Amino acid sequence: MSYSAPIKDMSFLLREICDMAALAQLPGYEEATPDLVETVLEEAGKLSAEVVAPLNHSGDLEGALLENGRVRTAAGFPEAYRQFVEGGWNALPFDPDHGGQGLPWSLAIATHEMLQSANMAFSLCPLLTSGSVHLLQAHGTPAQKALYLPKLISGEWSGTMNLTEPQAGSDVGALRTRAVKDGEAYRIYGQKIFITWGDHDCAENIVHMVLARTEGAPGGTKGISLFLVPKFLPDADGKPGRRNDLRCVSLEHKLGINASPTAVMAYGDDEGATGWLIGEACQGMAAMFTMMNNARLEVGTQGVAIAERAYQQALAYARERRQGRALDAAPTAAADVILRHPDVRRMLATMKALTEAGRAMAYLAAAAMDRAQAAPDAAERAAAERRFALLTPLVKAWCTDAGSQVADLGIQVHGGVGFIEETGAAQHYRDARILRIYEGTNGIQAIDLLSRKLLRDGGAEVKALQAEIAETVAALTKCDLPGLAAAGLPTAAALEAALDAQGAATDWLLAHGPGDPAAAAAGATPYCQLFGTLLGGWLLARSALAAAARLAEEEAPDRPFLEGKIKTAHFFAANLLPHCQALAETVTQGAPSCLALDDATF
Amino acid sequence: MSYSAPIKDMSFLLREICDMAALAQLPGYEEATPDLVETVLEEAGKLSAEVVAPLNHSGDLEGALLENGRVRTAAGFPEAYRQFVEGGWNALPFDPDHGGQGLPWSLAIATHEMLQSANMAFSLCPLLTSGSVHLLQAHGTPAQKALYLPKLISGEWSGTMNLTEPQAGSDVGALRTRAVKDGEAYRIYGQKIFITWGDHDCAENIVHMVLARTEGAPGGTKGISLFLVPKFLPDADGKPGRRNDLRCVSLEHKLGINASPTAVMAYGDDEGATGWLIGEACQGMAAMFTMMNNARLEVGTQGVAIAERAYQQALAYARERRQGRALDAAPTAAADVILRHPDVRRMLATMKALTEAGRAMAYLAAAAMDRAQAAPDAAERAAAERRFALLTPLVKAWCTDAGSQVADLGIQVHGGVGFIEETGAAQHYRDARILRIYEGTNGIQAIDLLSRKLLRDGGAEVKALQAEIAETVAALTKCDLPGLAAAGLPTAAALEAALDAQGAATDWLLAHGPGDPAAAAAGATPYCQLFGTLLGGWLLARSALAAAARLAEEEAPDRPFLEGKIKTAHFFAANLLPHCQALAETVTQGAPSCLALDDATF
Repeated sequence: MSYSAPIKDMSFLLREICDMAALAQLPGYEEATPDLVETVLEEAGKLSAEVVAPLNHSGDLEGALLENGRVRTAAGFPEAYRQFVEGGWNALPFDPDHGGQGLPWSLAIATHEMLQSANMAFSLCPLLTSGSVHLLQAHGTPAQKALYLPKLISGEWSGTMNLTEPQAGSDVGALRTRAVKDGEAYRIYGQKIFITWGDHDCAENIVHMVLARTEGAPGGTKGISLFLVPKFLPDADGKPGRRNDLRCVSLEHKLGINASPTAVMAYGDDEGATGWLIGEACQGMAAMFTMMNNARLEVGTQGVAIAERAYQQALAYARERRQGRALDAAPTAAADVILRHPDVRRMLATMKALTEAGRAMAYLAAAAMDRAQAAPDAAERAAAERRFALLTPLVKAWCTDAGSQVADLGIQVHGGVGFIEETGAAQHYRDARILRIYEGTNGIQAIDLLSRKLLRDGGAEVKALQAEIAETVAALTKCDLPGLAAAGLPTAAALEAALDAQGAATDWLLAHGPGDPAAAAAGATPYCQLFGTLLGGWLLARSALAAAARLAEEEAPDRPFLEGKIKTAHFFAANLLPHCQALAETVTQGAPSCLALDDATF
Repeated sequence: MSYSAPIKDMSFLLREICDMAALAQLPGYEEATPDLVETVLEEAGKLSAEVVAPLNHSGDLEGALLENGRVRTAAGFPEAYRQFVEGGWNALPFDPDHGGQGLPWSLAIATHEMLQSANMAFSLCPLLTSGSVHLLQAHGTPAQKALYLPKLISGEWSGTMNLTEPQAGSDVGALRTRAVKDGEAYRIYGQKIFITWGDHDCAENIVHMVLARTEGAPGGTKGISLFLVPKFLPDADGKPGRRNDLRCVSLEHKLGINASPTAVMAYGDDEGATGWLIGEACQGMAAMFTMMNNARLEVGTQGVAIAERAYQQALAYARERRQGRALDAAPTAAADVILRHPDVRRMLATMKALTEAGRAMAYLAAAAMDRAQAAPDAAERAAAERRFALLTPLVKAWCTDAGSQVADLGIQVHGGVGFIEETGAAQHYRDARILRIYEGTNGIQAIDLLSRKLLRDGGAEVKALQAEIAETVAALTKCDLPGLAAAGLPTAAALEAALDAQGAATDWLLAHGPGDPAAAAAGATPYCQLFGTLLGGWLLARSALAAAARLAEEEAPDRPFLEGKIKTAHFFAANLLPHCQALAETVTQGAPSCLALDDATF
């Protein structure tokens, strides 16, 4: 159950899909030289593989415990977290003015993927901290930033997001937590559930970002404000001081990510929890949206990460487990490793293709975020922001669906031992399942894609992306590099057919969405799946083009790796892209038929 | 988390798909009158809902424990098992000469589905006993039958199957357990793993069916014999006597079915376990095959059962959980139940369609088994046997895939609380996962379908089935019953397109399978998925035709139910059948491309 960071593929994608060389030209990213990128990947790979990964299975078995009002994480977690903080890993992509290293998000996301592969439960602590940093950077006062950002950026303090209440899940606007003005501060009263790393023993303080309603504020999302509520109130020196009136009252017993404490948090059981408004009153939802795209990208990356981990484990097993003879073996031959059986090979090829497609998609989105932040030209920044906004629900939903699917195949490759917890394959399957739910269920992502990303601008950004995909089809079709001789044309043909299908579904939604929102909404999920599959096939096709170029240009190319990129693109095109046509039919004809099933039918 | 047996649908399928009226004309099945069928369904429904279902969640939490060499099942299990035995439920489909009730398998399978829905872990005990009964009925000596069958048929004694060893999973021929002749009996030495209900405290004796190799027997599957090895050796009165030399040495910690003890069994640690040969020496594998189709049908039915349970739970939640407003609600309206949201409705429609399609498929296979056993005409029996053999891998693989998919959707419908174990949705997801692995992984089913069921007879039986599906297409196309006005033609068109796709994939496999077995084997799983999806769409279409006829003919038809059958068939046709074309492309072009990914590519 060891883990080895897939640095070769990460490095390839950062160069070929993110264009790291161009990113390193942007103001602020000058340090992201090829050498530094390689060093960062290697060192992050070491920490993940050697320090964090060994705690994954034991953490799952042990879980987090609530004892005497305090949460104790699994053995080794506090020490591993200290090493993570001391190595400066939390600070990688953040503002150097507050102690960050200012490196591109596309590089940071690769290191995050490693940490998530190594131990998804562990990685959630910095993931949530990252959200708090985003909120504070965008909406905090200078004093709030000065007090909290250095601690959060270093990771000495961790952060949490407090949105959900029992009656307010996807419908955040239904929340009831109250905030009562008290001088400069507020008193917070209410209960929040599903608070990831809501309490723990790894950081010296925990900064809770809490959505609550001020007195007299309107109902629904318009009356929600955002508050910063620390576990320990900072003293005059900015050190953790008096205990605030908030506590973890229970931990959930979950299907997976057992080592990640999922807390029920009670605010203000006594005198009221002290909190400070972040940004303007009643602008809490808008503030949340500033960090939501980022958090969704991170969760999508978790899907890639769990897929990578499950793939590595299944591949290792398939290379070693001997069972039955290969179809072309002599009848008296000894048993072969199961990787030689076509059905197993098909499963592993599917796992590899889904993982690499997801990785390319997540990194592409991160690079768009980098350009949206750092490009010198305002129009370029705006274009990158639009692209990032479009990619976000796709990365979140498609990559997490892929994470579950790959973890599922990982069990199947193992056969009977895959169902035994000791093997570890089942943990990935359990852990992966949350990814399609939290940070907005994948159904919510699909609605976001349909309503905010497609319909709102009348399809402009989607059509811009379609044009880029069409360019790749054209490039593949006319490419005469020898590396693409076998795979180029069939990959191009399948990509073109998928693009046509996505175009048909897109046009139908643009035509019918405004007038028949229920019919369009019924097809939102298949549309999101179709779009994500197309993107995956596109990015693998781009990877294949880049790989063919390198095979032709480099003096001593890494043939197995580069030829593998071409074969994987072809495999994806031939096995996964054909479903785009079926999904397009579903969007335009199938899904709306669910509306005919009235309540009495169920 | 309650369960209510779907008697309406079961009854409908037994009548319309199994043609229970015709089955009741067969010799031996005369008692299966409509009244008796209804009574059996209702009483089995009560036992399942009231006695067995309440132990499902507690059994999952508590699990089975190995204490002082004995396995203790979860609280309530022994008592519930006693009620099950005393009610005569185990004996339903078995030979009246040995205490069975001789009712049709198609009726029995409906009662088994209920038990499996109620508590999958519990239902595994009688499922394995059933396998032992099959083996003994087919291969036991008269004395063995007289001694063991009445106890196994009543359920007072339970049975197990002992095939797997650490080095011999799918490749059963690699097993090493030895059998040494000792007078009339044999001494058995060896270790077996994954023995379901290998030890427990519910029955007074346990009859192990053990595959082992006699001295001097050839290697591989040709040297394997089958032995009956009871936990307690029957005394002169046929009562459990001396303890045999076998023991449970450990229980597995599994992803699911925690209340089902999965044992590592040690035979012959001391003087050797006493066992008796069943059938001829070295014919153990052939004997196993006689019960394998039946066991695979039961496992397929478990897929339906877990799907039904997950569907009921998700539907209840969706009818009650309020979150957000429906798209057509006024902006100031209160929150709606989530069943009103199109994306949730689409998920529930998918769950319902998969469940009902799987149920129809499993019951159809059971009816084929009934005809194979009871038809007076030998040619008719042989035809039914061929049909049952073809349907078996499809039911096993497709229905268990559907079980996982429905359980997965069940979690998604619940959102965040679906990930919390207390809710119960996650248990179904965990429990369902084993179904695609045990009793032959679904990859093994797909190879069975390809090699034994398609290629061996040159496609004859598959083509016979295709002709029947074409008849349904024709009937739907020309049907002018008012109930089918909206759904008839689109359902027929989608079914015809799926049939064409299956035909293309079938023809390709028939053409290429003999010459290029690896390419064909790579497509075995997508072919199995394609074929199963087509079958599901076909049986729902047949259900729709029958429902339309009843709507037109009956005086007071059950409109919501019968119209629901028609709408569900249309939903399946419009949403799931389109993937048949994609799967056909995968079989003929996609899957073989995995063979291009050589070992170095992974």
